[in-house]
Amino acid sequence: MSSASASGPSPATAAAAAPVETDAATGATGPMTQPPKFLVDMKAKFCRMCGGRLELSTPPEGKEWRHVCQNPDCGYIDYQNPKMVVGCIVEHEGKVLLCKRAIQPCYGKWTLPAGYMEWNESSAAGAARETWEEAHAQVSVIAPYAHWDIPMIGQAYILFRASLAPPYTFSSGPESLEVALFEPSAIPFEELAFSSVSTTLRLYLEDLRTGSFRFHHGVIDKRPGSLPNDPGAFVVRDHMALSVDLAGPSGGADTATQQ
Amino acid sequence: MSSASASGPSPATAAAAAPVETDAATGATGPMTQPPKFLVDMKAKFCRMCGGRLELSTPPEGKEWRHVCQNPDCGYIDYQNPKMVVGCIVEHEGKVLLCKRAIQPCYGKWTLPAGYMEWNESSAAGAARETWEEAHAQVSVIAPYAHWDIPMIGQAYILFRASLAPPYTFSSGPESLEVALFEPSAIPFEELAFSSVSTTLRLYLEDLRTGSFRFHHGVIDKRPGSLPNDPGAFVVRDHMALSVDLAGPSGGADTATQQ
Repeated sequence: MSSASASGPSPATAAAAAPVETDAATGATGPMTQPPKFLVDMKAKFCRMCGGRLELSTPPEGKEWRHVCQNPDCGYIDYQNPKMVVGCIVEHEGKVLLCKRAIQPCYGKWTLPAGYMEWNESSAAGAARETWEEAHAQVSVIAPYAHWDIPMIGQAYILFRASLAPPYTFSSGPESLEVALFEPSAIPFEELAFSSVSTTLRLYLEDLRTGSFRFHHGVIDKRPGSLPNDPGAFVVRDHMALSVDLAGPSGGADTATQQ
Repeated sequence: MSSASASGPSPATAAAAAPVETDAATGATGPMTQPPKFLVDMKAKFCRMCGGRLELSTPPEGKEWRHVCQNPDCGYIDYQNPKMVVGCIVEHEGKVLLCKRAIQPCYGKWTLPAGYMEWNESSAAGAARETWEEAHAQVSVIAPYAHWDIPMIGQAYILFRASLAPPYTFSSGPESLEVALFEPSAIPFEELAFSSVSTTLRLYLEDLRTGSFRFHHGVIDKRPGSLPNDPGAFVVRDHMALSVDLAGPSGGADTATQQ
């Protein structure tokens, strides 16, 4: 079911550091004479500041295509930034907690508890909040485990290892049909919801086998138009795995810098 | 200038996992009868979908305060999510590249090249792009180095170690007055721009001394109303430092999972 391919030991290089734009949808690079597809597809049409019409145009000072308010008294630029999705790999007695989705996309598929980070919370607190909301589980965050950028859909996944905390109970939140602990060997890879989740859990199993949890970072490129859980519809590139000292996440971490 | 205090070896715990809200501005927790300050302060007043008026209200199905479009045919919820700021610690011949800011905030202060991540790029590519724009420097990204959440201002900093790449040149971009390489001992801590930058560079010096680069994660809490570079106006909490294997970032990283 899984195929692992060697990508070589080289770190990610910043090949696109020159002042060109990359259209994640097409992979094309170079000065763009047409707006990128994700901007054309954007549903927002009005200015958040004045209610005026937004139109795609290249701002005078810049080079990027932007939605700009056409009200000459306003001129607000509607920047599009990626959203962070935060979640937990909840561990308990050697098992991992998964949620069966009660909502689209991927209704009926299994996922790690995760969701959009809010403005006024940390990523770890957001991951714990989402775990509470989707699985009614209290957790203690152990350490960051993975960061995946998915440029095509404007998302960055930040996932933490966490342990189930007292009272060690869980149940379905409103967005879950079912919540269950899975033995690692029983994780239903054919029924997982998202590329980020299957990628993370495959590496988690690798790390379990070697006995060393790494910190994983990389980019998930999805095939345009593919479904969120379509096997074969994505590739992981620029994967960097930081080999973490077995002393654990708090090894050498007992210093809080305070200016 | 710096004071280090022991925070204990415990990992970050998800104390706020219960379904209560936290007002980052006040530290208050519990069901909120008043909207949080960051939402009240939000300048956006119009719906991006229909141009209708936004008003603060608790949506029927949820518990959080949101800006909701008052057009009954629309009802769009204007979610507020944090923005990612991506940047590089650029290393060359034992020195670190810093940029003197030509823009506010913190005009004239020194910073790491960094800026808002765009929707259709990865964090590493965005960090390299910002380094090009602000310092006209080509870089190779080595590894993730730090992730700081700053809930009070809705930002998450993702900073990478990078090496200056051929042709090994740099110069001021439009947002920089000056770009220079600093010996670690000469980093102008009194003249740094942001809490995230000073926190990162202090830890970078620690890691240089011990000869082991860690991956740092934590939360920066700023004093309400403080200036971006006000000393003493912020604390770092829930600092986790993953002790990275000296084999380097690519140790054990030669596997790309591809479904």
